[in-house]
Amino acid sequence: MSAWLMASPGARAEGNMRWPCQMEARPCSRVFSGIQPTGVPHLGNYLGALENWVALQNQHPSVLYSIVDLHSITQPQDPTRLRSNVMDMAASLLACGVDPERAVLFQQSQVSEHAELSWILGCLTSMPRLRHLPQWKMKSKLKNEGSVGLYTYPVLQAADILLYKSTHVPVGEDQVQHLELAQDLARIFNNRYGDLFPEPRALLSSTQKVKSLRDPSAKMSKSDPQTMATITITDSADDIALKIRRAVTDFTSEVTFDPQTRPGVSNLVTIHAAVAQITVEAAVQQARGLDTGGYKKLVSDAVVQRLTPIGQELQRLRSDPAHLQEVLLQGTRRARELAAPVLREVQQRVGFC
Amino acid sequence: MSAWLMASPGARAEGNMRWPCQMEARPCSRVFSGIQPTGVPHLGNYLGALENWVALQNQHPSVLYSIVDLHSITQPQDPTRLRSNVMDMAASLLACGVDPERAVLFQQSQVSEHAELSWILGCLTSMPRLRHLPQWKMKSKLKNEGSVGLYTYPVLQAADILLYKSTHVPVGEDQVQHLELAQDLARIFNNRYGDLFPEPRALLSSTQKVKSLRDPSAKMSKSDPQTMATITITDSADDIALKIRRAVTDFTSEVTFDPQTRPGVSNLVTIHAAVAQITVEAAVQQARGLDTGGYKKLVSDAVVQRLTPIGQELQRLRSDPAHLQEVLLQGTRRARELAAPVLREVQQRVGFC
Repeated sequence: MSAWLMASPGARAEGNMRWPCQMEARPCSRVFSGIQPTGVPHLGNYLGALENWVALQNQHPSVLYSIVDLHSITQPQDPTRLRSNVMDMAASLLACGVDPERAVLFQQSQVSEHAELSWILGCLTSMPRLRHLPQWKMKSKLKNEGSVGLYTYPVLQAADILLYKSTHVPVGEDQVQHLELAQDLARIFNNRYGDLFPEPRALLSSTQKVKSLRDPSAKMSKSDPQTMATITITDSADDIALKIRRAVTDFTSEVTFDPQTRPGVSNLVTIHAAVAQITVEAAVQQARGLDTGGYKKLVSDAVVQRLTPIGQELQRLRSDPAHLQEVLLQGTRRARELAAPVLREVQQRVGFC
Repeated sequence: MSAWLMASPGARAEGNMRWPCQMEARPCSRVFSGIQPTGVPHLGNYLGALENWVALQNQHPSVLYSIVDLHSITQPQDPTRLRSNVMDMAASLLACGVDPERAVLFQQSQVSEHAELSWILGCLTSMPRLRHLPQWKMKSKLKNEGSVGLYTYPVLQAADILLYKSTHVPVGEDQVQHLELAQDLARIFNNRYGDLFPEPRALLSSTQKVKSLRDPSAKMSKSDPQTMATITITDSADDIALKIRRAVTDFTSEVTFDPQTRPGVSNLVTIHAAVAQITVEAAVQQARGLDTGGYKKLVSDAVVQRLTPIGQELQRLRSDPAHLQEVLLQGTRRARELAAPVLREVQQRVGFC
């Protein structure tokens, strides 16, 4: 999985504030985020982003989560794989706790307004503005080429956000510049056509990033060729235990948290604290008296305990594709109901109708 | 008016061939063209492109003409002006003879599939592929800047064409490279996802281009600051007579056709032949015995005769905006009926559904 606004693991809400719409003069808050359909998430995705998505749906009156398949085709995709990845991502989000009663969960390509608003915003974006944004710089260099879609990726992101007049967007650090483009485009549109879009604010992450179990200098990543490096949320208890047992640490047997000098064991502490929902200090406290081997057992038990119900729920959801389809269809319908009047208003302001 | 596929005056059909669908193995021909809504057309637009549009609707079983407002916002537009320009363009097309029973006449921005297919095709287009295309080279240099919309303009053109599986596109010479992109994208899509799009063929223009009446080295253009340079299809008989009387010619009083050495008088011959629907030779023949002044009277009478009924019909149509709206609405509905199943098929092939 690579995330739309969260290629690095995700985001935390601005404290735990709520903005009750009736009590304050400012408009209701609306959270928007997107995730690329790249199959079943791994532990880094879950702890970095998805866990936070679940929290946000209880903190804001309006929340939209989009499976951004239009974004995913900026890199070549196998159609059959893409189709099943969309369903797997939908199932994974639900299994992780996204509640379709609280959050509008939908498939981007099924809401035509995203591409339409993207075209309009592209006419307000200068070409050089996109040249140094991370998505293009990273991915076009990586393969020494890039499509128009990859270059204009951040404009579509801006459209995703503004289409729902979103006020808050959970972003990882690497996506801050993309959000700034959305803010700029809101301002440019408002200046030219009259106030319409709120300037969306970042909900910046304070989460520790989960690292590869084989190379704790790198992020945990689905595309890591070493299967032992990454725990996916569907891994069995045995697989999880094996991967953590084999995790790269160092020759000091005591457990401490020092990501600079001891990245391997510190990564285990990060994981432990996150899955057990305790502080890093409390995790280190629990490790007292254990050597690295003993601590690995403790960490893998905590991970298994956290992921087992998610994995079971995911299996259950996967076995009922009709239900999944229906959830996505309902979400898409609700997204359209929100998007259509905004795009209509945009069209009127621009002079199309 | 600046045209979508016809920034230079337009195009002629491939002879007068018809392709009766039942009689030949190859699929039905479908013609697509677009025109930017920039108000009432001038004589150059009419003779170069619109007259040909009217001919094409009688030569092909399926014809679509789009008022391409999504393209027009690649340059800044005043919304009120844009709105009235769309209506004026619709009225002008009808007044010139576009028959909504034979051609689907519609407003591009009201068919969401254009922007959606454009996004998908953009993901199949490499960035450098667009750098040397005429629209970007001309217009971005002119103002020393350019938007993402202007850069990706030819991708949206390709989407316009392919969305209806169009087989033939009337193009001016300056648009041949843009059509080649549409052909390339049809090929790229078909190679990757299986045959879906015919490669659209150019219907190249053989029309003489109408020049400015004040500077016969330049094209007749709506944006010409000299009002005497351009005849619009709504000009009064007096205005037409005055503009042609003042037309720049030379000091030889005899009328000949030699665009290289005598561009001014040759432009009058071109206009005369075109409005009277005779050959250039027949026009020169009719001028025999007349000096330039006398010939100008003959040409302006011919232009008045041709434009008067068009201008009158345009006034009638403008006085009934509800009818115009209804015509556009019907056209938009028919365009959507054609576009929706094609986009659906594209989405399935790509893996979105």
